[in-house]
Amino acid sequence: MPLTEPLHAIIPAGGAGTRLWPLSRRAAPKFLLDLTGSGRTLLQQTVDRLAPLTDGGSISVVTGAVHAPAVLGQLPELGEQSLLAEPSPRDSMAAIALAAAVARRRHGDVVVGSFAADHVITDRAAFEAAVREAVAVAREDYVVTIGIEAGHPSTAFGYIHAGEPLAPDDDAATARHVVGFTEKPDVATATEYLATGEYRWNAGMFVVRAGVLLEHLAAQKPDLAAGVAQIAEAWDTPAREEILARVWPTLEKIAIDHAIAEPVAAQGGVAVVPAAMGWDDVGDFDGLAELLPADAEGVHVLGDADVLADGAPGSFVVGSGRTVAVVGVPGLVVVDTPDALLVTTREHAQRVKHVVESLGTEREHLR
Amino acid sequence: MPLTEPLHAIIPAGGAGTRLWPLSRRAAPKFLLDLTGSGRTLLQQTVDRLAPLTDGGSISVVTGAVHAPAVLGQLPELGEQSLLAEPSPRDSMAAIALAAAVARRRHGDVVVGSFAADHVITDRAAFEAAVREAVAVAREDYVVTIGIEAGHPSTAFGYIHAGEPLAPDDDAATARHVVGFTEKPDVATATEYLATGEYRWNAGMFVVRAGVLLEHLAAQKPDLAAGVAQIAEAWDTPAREEILARVWPTLEKIAIDHAIAEPVAAQGGVAVVPAAMGWDDVGDFDGLAELLPADAEGVHVLGDADVLADGAPGSFVVGSGRTVAVVGVPGLVVVDTPDALLVTTREHAQRVKHVVESLGTEREHLR
Repeated sequence: MPLTEPLHAIIPAGGAGTRLWPLSRRAAPKFLLDLTGSGRTLLQQTVDRLAPLTDGGSISVVTGAVHAPAVLGQLPELGEQSLLAEPSPRDSMAAIALAAAVARRRHGDVVVGSFAADHVITDRAAFEAAVREAVAVAREDYVVTIGIEAGHPSTAFGYIHAGEPLAPDDDAATARHVVGFTEKPDVATATEYLATGEYRWNAGMFVVRAGVLLEHLAAQKPDLAAGVAQIAEAWDTPAREEILARVWPTLEKIAIDHAIAEPVAAQGGVAVVPAAMGWDDVGDFDGLAELLPADAEGVHVLGDADVLADGAPGSFVVGSGRTVAVVGVPGLVVVDTPDALLVTTREHAQRVKHVVESLGTEREHLR
Repeated sequence: MPLTEPLHAIIPAGGAGTRLWPLSRRAAPKFLLDLTGSGRTLLQQTVDRLAPLTDGGSISVVTGAVHAPAVLGQLPELGEQSLLAEPSPRDSMAAIALAAAVARRRHGDVVVGSFAADHVITDRAAFEAAVREAVAVAREDYVVTIGIEAGHPSTAFGYIHAGEPLAPDDDAATARHVVGFTEKPDVATATEYLATGEYRWNAGMFVVRAGVLLEHLAAQKPDLAAGVAQIAEAWDTPAREEILARVWPTLEKIAIDHAIAEPVAAQGGVAVVPAAMGWDDVGDFDGLAELLPADAEGVHVLGDADVLADGAPGSFVVGSGRTVAVVGVPGLVVVDTPDALLVTTREHAQRVKHVVESLGTEREHLR
């Protein structure tokens, strides 16, 4: 399917990635890191992926003010006007709505699409095909999400419950109505979901006409919509800083899923384009290890590590120039950074966030 | 028991300690390291322990020529004449015999005692009492060993089989005849040993009159004895270097256990003084962890490590100034040195030597 109209992509770039500590830090969050050894950071790869879809459109990055210089440094081709710096984090709805509102003022009632800055997608052709179909469906005033093929009963993701085909007579169309969204399930529930064949992972990708998004917001969250409109109006004027500083902190902190996707799905206004694209949210070291090739000893390596392994298949080593010997424990995780070292196993990868929580004030510099 | 005559102590300081890599290196072997966080290296602690027993006697250290400067640096009180530098390793018999022969030339037919440079003994009073008794027994021309109370059926040590009391009518005497020595047993055999109450660990401590030792050597290994005598005669003369360089490489490589202890025990010439003195040979990281106190999280720490533990009781961290987080695996071993990092578990501590073997020529500098 050709692109029916140019996409205006919005990249919310936030999140600390605490389960990837000490690789990911507050000052060097996941999206600013090259986690796949490709030479490009996750943010850069996100932009690379969107480039073919945004010809004639635009790409905006919404990020915390503290990360703005790093984002611009990594994406010199975008320019300052593509960067929307948040004074403080207000969750995804405010970020995406502001970018959509600014895009509408600049470009008219265009189709926007939000794509997280810190996910990995290995099959770009499948991604592009899914987004092209999503753009076409968005022109029919749906809020369109992309439903990732659920490879296993993950308890780390929310699920999209897909219903009837949107265009049953169109063989080329794969989009379906969305029955609803679910929170992260337990394993039993996730297993049931997979058995039905009707559930997809929610990767937070939303494609929608800017006007449709903002109308839904006005209906669901009128105060938030009004605040965003006020900021967007001032954005490309000298009043931006003053209005932003005054209004932004008053905006409701809510995710787009709760503010729009769930209530609008209940009204029949959300569609899903199913896709298998080698997607991963790189949620923890177990997931990250899977994305990296294993050496002859079965060890996955990221960065500059000279690894010696003896009986440690499936281990994952993030190096910082030293020789690292892993002995006797399959699935070890060793993350070797200049000021902090993490040792765990892939099985316990989710527990890493507790370590970050326990750093306390005396180790504030390591966050 | 008072010391019946001064002891002339011999400290063979050799062995790479490959199971303690990367802490222990060829250039910084176990005996040169402070492994207990006491502020004194194992070698220095060995000398400290022997000081009260060698008043009026002497202490000699036999070590590889490459380690001689470091040994003298750690033991400035000893002086160069206390150091016997081996041009190459010829095992313990040549080292101890040479030191004994030099001592006899310098001091007459004194009682010598050999004590490894890289063991830990926590109960010094018990050690001193055992050595005092051993010196008294050595005056009766026995080769006297000290038999360490076997706390568990270790397969890492040889055992001493104790027989009848040497002086059954002397209530103060604990020495026994030695029936024989055993090689390292399997677990079943070691368990049988312990059940009999007749077996003790062989820690390689031998106390014997110099003349007795050298006569046994002449009887058992005449070529070795002749070579040692030739070197000893030249030792305190200008001919030392020339003779040492010529004769030393020809000496048979054999341990004192095989050369003297075993055959002389078979002749009834060996006695054992049983003792419990908190002895440990610090053979691997599992053993080393036991010697160090655990923090509130149950983690044993050596060196400068800021440890964060979550579900890793019994772990052992050797630090080098960084924050180290250990998560989810009890008994982890993390040895963090400037150029090499080892991660394993205490259960696999013995496997560390295989890592050193696999370093290969490209990592020769890490040995």
